[in-house]
Order: sequence, then structure tokens, then C-alpha cells
Amino acid sequence: MFKEMLNNVRSKTPLIHNITNYVTVNDCANILLACGGSPIMSDDISEVEEITSICGGLNINIGTLNANTIPSMFAAGKKANELGHPVVLDPVGAGASSLRTNTAHKLLEEVKFAAIRGNISEVKALINGEGTTRGVDADVADTVNEDTLPQAVNFAKAFSAKTGAIIAITGAIDIIADAEKAYVLYNGHSMMSSVTGTGCQLSALTAAYLTANPEHPLEAVAAAVCAMGVCGQIAHDRMTELDGNSSYRNYIIDAIHNLDGDTLDKMANYKVM
Amino acid sequence: MFKEMLNNVRSKTPLIHNITNYVTVNDCANILLACGGSPIMSDDISEVEEITSICGGLNINIGTLNANTIPSMFAAGKKANELGHPVVLDPVGAGASSLRTNTAHKLLEEVKFAAIRGNISEVKALINGEGTTRGVDADVADTVNEDTLPQAVNFAKAFSAKTGAIIAITGAIDIIADAEKAYVLYNGHSMMSSVTGTGCQLSALTAAYLTANPEHPLEAVAAAVCAMGVCGQIAHDRMTELDGNSSYRNYIIDAIHNLDGDTLDKMANYKVM
Amino acid sequence: MFKEMLNNVRSKTPLIHNITNYVTVNDCANILLACGGSPIMSDDISEVEEITSICGGLNINIGTLNANTIPSMFAAGKKANELGHPVVLDPVGAGASSLRTNTAHKLLEEVKFAAIRGNISEVKALINGEGTTRGVDADVADTVNEDTLPQAVNFAKAFSAKTGAIIAITGAIDIIADAEKAYVLYNGHSMMSSVTGTGCQLSALTAAYLTANPEHPLEAVAAAVCAMGVCGQIAHDRMTELDGNSSYRNYIIDAIHNLDGDTLDKMANYKVM
Repeated sequence: MFKEMLNNVRSKTPLIHNITNYVTVNDCANILLACGGSPIMSDDISEVEEITSICGGLNINIGTLNANTIPSMFAAGKKANELGHPVVLDPVGAGASSLRTNTAHKLLEEVKFAAIRGNISEVKALINGEGTTRGVDADVADTVNEDTLPQAVNFAKAFSAKTGAIIAITGAIDIIADAEKAYVLYNGHSMMSSVTGTGCQLSALTAAYLTANPEHPLEAVAAAVCAMGVCGQIAHDRMTELDGNSSYRNYIIDAIHNLDGDTLDKMANYKVM
Repeated sequence: MFKEMLNNVRSKTPLIHNITNYVTVNDCANILLACGGSPIMSDDISEVEEITSICGGLNINIGTLNANTIPSMFAAGKKANELGHPVVLDPVGAGASSLRTNTAHKLLEEVKFAAIRGNISEVKALINGEGTTRGVDADVADTVNEDTLPQAVNFAKAFSAKTGAIIAITGAIDIIADAEKAYVLYNGHSMMSSVTGTGCQLSALTAAYLTANPEHPLEAVAAAVCAMGVCGQIAHDRMTELDGNSSYRNYIIDAIHNLDGDTLDKMANYKVM
Repeated sequence: MFKEMLNNVRSKTPLIHNITNYVTVNDCANILLACGGSPIMSDDISEVEEITSICGGLNINIGTLNANTIPSMFAAGKKANELGHPVVLDPVGAGASSLRTNTAHKLLEEVKFAAIRGNISEVKALINGEGTTRGVDADVADTVNEDTLPQAVNFAKAFSAKTGAIIAITGAIDIIADAEKAYVLYNGHSMMSSVTGTGCQLSALTAAYLTANPEHPLEAVAAAVCAMGVCGQIAHDRMTELDGNSSYRNYIIDAIHNLDGDTLDKMANYKVM
């Protein structure tokens, strides 16, 4: 199933508009090219609607958020909604500042997202700030492990039901859920957290997979997350003792470039909950 | 001939002011260092004229164009003109949005460029928008191949005659033309398009070559384009089966770092039209 | 001694807020992860105080300075001072434009820095602009070599006495001084200057070392500078003949990732003046 998702990206070359932070933007562009997609980065309010219109999908990442690009996120998001393009939200640092938390909340109110991808803390922050309604996340722990997995899966499903978005909570264990069904993925390598922007890259990748697979959003997001994890493993296998996180960064993108559907399906390690 | 151009860059260490996008800026800086030049990135209106004044050349790249940096491009461009510094225009995404197309047109009106480097679509967009005068590009195809080459060369020569700039149209086949003469280059590798910013890097490189070779602008630009193509080939020869576009990015810059004039001349594959 | 500094970074995982340029920001993030720290990049005035508050240290780098981020530097710097967090200044390009020189001067007036790291020209520019008081730097040469070393060391000590900051003047020979004592380091490799942002990376690293070693600021900064130099050597030893500055960039960060305290102490090459 994931294989089909990957092959559709390769055959359709989805063009993805990214409004993203300046820290990891180059890696986001290269991973989009690696997976078979095509990136455009654009964040000025006077062109984002036009740029989104020529693309197939939109990736909004709130890292290094600033006053100039916030209105662009809303304008592009609404335009993409109007055109029926999938929009991904990466709530980088939600919970770390009011600016990021509030912007994420407003984006959720005004833009319909096809997927939201973050770590457990970031995704929880999308709920916590909403006035007094802490609701679904009340007892979700800050780490997803086998003990906390059931409640984290329920949290993801409930948040998906509420937002209509596929929820991807990534970490040592990844949860990808719609309102009814969740993929729990065990791919990846702990060293991925020593490379800046693997999360940002995954969000860009997710936008490409969603755009190329409009009929299967849950499987598209799960395939993207799985591809990133599998490539984290392939890349790690390649490390020499002199290599560190900088070479690892390159090897992960290289692995995405070389990944084929059979390898993805063979290495995929998941259960459905 | 190209060898001499390269050697002048190595011996003169041209200092290049770049007003460029935040996607590929790091690679532009590293390729300038690799070729023997020296980069300064600066885009605030209150310093760009001063920064341009201490440099030898200016590279204006309109990727991730925004309201803050547009006035800086005009100010720096005019200052560079006043000082007789070569100015390169990379019209990234011209044709993709009105902001980019219109800004490129205004830049062409108000700043004299020594060279313009883009793909065929971007360069065509520099003409198409000009009111009703579609003139020279009326029948230029969107791909340069052996069939469309003669008209593309004529288009490049005509656009050079009109602007006074060396026109570099890069792709599978590269055309570098002044009003009278064109170099048609067959170097490069198709995988270069899977690395974000190889075009941006080439524009930065072009600025260094032009700055170090003020007496031979056409050959300087042709040598820069040829160097990039040759290094795309050298870098590709080095790829292992685990390598992908991210390692390839590094290998291209590495090859520019190690390139000598003899290798450039030996590997150069071109004709004059 | 340096070993202890390094180990404290690894064990304490200092979280560093960076307000830095968009050219080398990705490398700064990856080197912070490599050394055992954790990076946050944030520059919008409406969140920088909050972000600084959740961090342990602040790194202010004035490359690609612009009107939007200058007020953020002051706000974050003052907040960090209030909280007792160490603040590092990297005066990139001070002396190259009035904007950079003046901003650096004002930052020195309004923010208390724990360390200032730049090349000799940049550090001199921090003094030269101060009205008529050229004072301490009057006879400091623009290059630090064995002949000019004594006066450069005196300059660094005097500037430290004046600012209260540890002064790190880096180049072929590195000087790290407080008002009383200076470490003169001979580590590093000349090829490091062919990689963009090794200075920016070192400033980020310095912030991590200072934050993890609040009781020994001089040794913390010296250890950071030494680590960078040692890793420049380790990385260079690894170069093949096809490698150039782009691979070297990765290898330096890799080496920081793999560096242990024993290797640092064994390879450290310095004297105290």
C-alpha cells in the first residue's frame, strides 16, 4: 500500500508550495526533489496566492515565524482550501511562545488542514491553548511509549475527528491517525533527532505524498512518515565511525532519493490500532 | 580560453555581494568560496549600497522575493552600476508570479545588467510581460534541443542586443550569448536538476567570473557555465549507489573547489554559433 | 580542563536561542546538536523574550542584519541579561557597513555580553567606531601572527576589561582572553576559511559551552574554540582528493559530533599569556 503512495509521488511530480522557516528550508527543498516532487518556496503576501495556485499542495511550517510571513500563511492556506489543494501544518515550537501557539490556533480556525505533523508536545499545544476546553488531551503524556500509546492514539483520533486533518505525531514511535484508524510505526532511528529539521523535512514530504494521493490521505501520510523512518535506518546503516550528524543529514536525503516502493513495503514496521 | 577565466578568479579573489533567496544562500556562499571568490550576503536597504561599494560584483537573485529586499535590489544595482561593477540577474521564478515578473522587468529598466542567467522559461518571461512588444521571443519553444536551438540562439542574441547583458539560458543545452556570438555548451548532467539551487549557485559563480574578467564578459560567463557543467559531470562520476541528490550537491561544490583550468578546457564541450 | 567543559555540554544539553543570519543558520543548528546542545532559532520581536526565557543561553550574530531583527536582538539580549543567561556576540561584518558597526556598538552599550567572538578586523571595529576614543586598539595589526601576538593579546585583555566579556579573536592563531589571562591556541586548519560560516558555527558552539560552564567562562570559551580547531584538523585528515569545501563542512560538524574530551585535551595546542 505504501509502495503505491510512493510510486504516485514519483509519477506525478507534485509541485509543493512551502512557507517555511529559514533554518531547514534548503533540506526541505532537497527532500522534495529527492522523493520525486518539486518545491517552490515563497512567503511574500503579494505573491503567495498566485504561487499556491500553480502548485498542487501547500506546506505551512511555523518555525522562525515572523510578522511578515504570518499573513502569507493565512492567505495561501485559504487559497489552497478554495482550490482543493491539501495543506499540511507543521506547528514547530507550538507551546514554546504565544506567537507560535496563537498563530497555530488561528490557522486551525481559518484554514482546513489535510494533515498536521508535529511531535507530541507540539500537537498537544494545539489543543491546550483553546480556552478552557482542554478536552481530549487531558491525560496525554509527553512521551509516546508502549504504556502511553493507547491514550496517545485516542488523542490523535479525537483530534483528527475535530479538525478533519490526518494527525501525525512523530517521535520514537509514530502515530498517524484519522478519526477511525491509526497506523503506529516503529521505523526510524534515534539519531534522527540529532539532525536539525528532520521533522520539517518530513512535513514537506507529507505534503508531496498527500498531493499525489488525494484519494488515500491516511495511507499517504503514513507512507511519508514510514519512508522517512525507513530512510533514517538505511542512512544509519551507511554511517562510518567518522560520520556524524552532518553526513547523516545527507545520507537521509540520499536514501529518500533512492528509495523504491518495494524497499519501503519490505522495511515498513507498523501495526494498525 | 576558459582556463584563463578560471585562473583570474583564483588569482583575484573577487568579492561578490549577493542579494539572494534564503533557500540556497548557503550553497551560493560555499560555491563562491570554492571557485576562489569571496561572498558577502546583505539585503537591508540601509547597508546594501555600502556593502556593494566594498565588493567587486553584485548578484541579484529574485527567489523568495519579498517586500523588504526589493528596494535593496534596486539600490544596490544602481550603486553597482555607478561604480562600474558587473551585476548579474537571476530571475528565479519569473513568470510564476506577477511580483517576480514585474520586479524583474523593473530591474531590467532601472539597472544595467552584465549578465542574466535563467532557464528558458524564466528568460522568456523577462520579455513576455513587456506590454504588447512580445517581439523576439514570439516563437521560442520552452525547451532547448537541437531542433529549437537555432531560434533559441537567435532569441538570446536579440535579447542581449536589447539589454546589453550577456544572456545565459541554461538547461540540458546551455546558450551563452552576446548580440553577435553564442557559445552552445553540452556539459552538465541531468541529475543536476535534482539538487535545489544549482541555478542559483551558477549565477553566483557567474558574478565571480565576470568580476575577475571584466575585459571578456562573454567568455567569462561561458566559462562559469562550463565550469558548473563540468563539475556536474565530475561530481556524478563520483557517486556511489547509496549516494543521492544531497551527496551530489556536496560533490558539485567540491568539484568546483578542486577544478583547475586544464581540466576545464579539456572537458569543455561546446560549439560557437 | 577543556575536557570537563566539553563533558558538561554533553551532560547538560544547553538550549541555545540564536538570532542569526540566514546564510549559515542551518550549520549553526546542526553544530549545536553535534556538540550535545539544542538550538532554537527565533527572531520576531513578539516572541524573542519568551523564547530566550526558556533557553539557557543566547547567541546574537549580526550577519544579514536587517531592520526587523535588530530590535529583537536588543529585546532578547536584555531579557537574557535579566535572567543571568550568557549572551554571545558575533559581530559578523562589523566595520563593513555603518549598520553593522553601529548596531554592534549599541548592542555593546545596552547588553552585557559573556563573550564576543570575531576575527581581528571585526573585533577592532567594535572599538574604532566609538567616537574619538580609539584607545586600546591603536596599534593592533590586522593579522595575528607571532610578531603581532603580544599586542593583540594586550588588546584582547584590555577589551575584555572594558566590556566584561571574554574576547575570542579567531584566525590562524586564536586568542581567548579575559582581563587577566589569555589562551593562545594553535589548533585549526587554513582550509576552514574556505567553508562559509565556520565562525558563525563557533559562536553558536561558544554559547553552548558558556551556558554549560557558568563558573568558568574563560575556559569554556577557550574549550569551544579549541574544539572547533581540533575538529577542523580531524576533518581535514579525513579528506580525499575528490573532497572540497562542501564535504569539509560536513566533516567538521561530524567531528564535533564525535569529539570526546580526551581527544580534545590530547590535541589541544595552546599556551597561556
